[in-house]
Amino acid sequence: MTSQQLAVKVAINSWKSVVERVGKKFSALTEDQLLKEVAPGKNRLIYIWGHLTAIHDAMFPILGLGPRMHPELDDIFVANPDKARQLPSASELKKYWHEINGKLLSQFESIAPDEWLLQHHAMSEEDYAKDPTRNRLAVLISRTNHASYHLGQAMLAAK
Amino acid sequence: MTSQQLAVKVAINSWKSVVERVGKKFSALTEDQLLKEVAPGKNRLIYIWGHLTAIHDAMFPILGLGPRMHPELDDIFVANPDKARQLPSASELKKYWHEINGKLLSQFESIAPDEWLLQHHAMSEEDYAKDPTRNRLAVLISRTNHASYHLGQAMLAAK
Repeated sequence: MTSQQLAVKVAINSWKSVVERVGKKFSALTEDQLLKEVAPGKNRLIYIWGHLTAIHDAMFPILGLGPRMHPELDDIFVANPDKARQLPSASELKKYWHEINGKLLSQFESIAPDEWLLQHHAMSEEDYAKDPTRNRLAVLISRTNHASYHLGQAMLAAK
Repeated sequence: MTSQQLAVKVAINSWKSVVERVGKKFSALTEDQLLKEVAPGKNRLIYIWGHLTAIHDAMFPILGLGPRMHPELDDIFVANPDKARQLPSASELKKYWHEINGKLLSQFESIAPDEWLLQHHAMSEEDYAKDPTRNRLAVLISRTNHASYHLGQAMLAAK
């Protein structure tokens, strides 16, 4: 394995481990448990799960991996706060979560190590020229941190 | 910049941005605000701050950067849960946080890109031979996720 392959593999492993923890945590909750708030007056568990699902779905076009699978989730879980919209059922969300993250992971493995260092698709050529660290690998690491952030919140409402 | 340098720089940037958010969040709180729980019956903000400080301090020996600055924090913030020990004051913690994270960041910049892919110091040669992704870069990315996880919790208690 080259150094470059190794560095990318470390970042993908980290993503994989956080996504697995999130999937395991939320999949184990009942519909009723998912309706609990993580702290008084804060987001419900189901909203956080849907939010992570929508944000991960948006990684397909950002990473140049093709169109989104469920763009309709954005209005519910990104553009609007919790309790503003009718939410999908827990079983639908579970299906979306596994579809989206399964496909992402298999596509990650098809990206060559050097391609991870290329510009991502949510920025201009000009900005990338100024700052080459704004690449695909940065998107992967940033979304892993985002999932960890919300996982920490979800763990508070546990049981 | 080589690909390898770029990959390491992306990971350090991510660490830096999360550490800055954590520092800004906790440093802005009063002693009273720091005594609030992040959710009913959960850790207090000051405990989470101390916990992150202790875990970051432990990165010096794990990454081969020399001895810890404040090993005494482990008993209070890692080995024991919140409310089991007398805690340092907010102003002491703030000082430790900035000392530890300032020194870590400056030392990160002295590690050559290839050295980030070497075995970290909390594992045996034998385990590293089996799995070379258990390297220093993996420790950096994992601790960044850990900080994001607790930052997400701290944000719930905000204001």
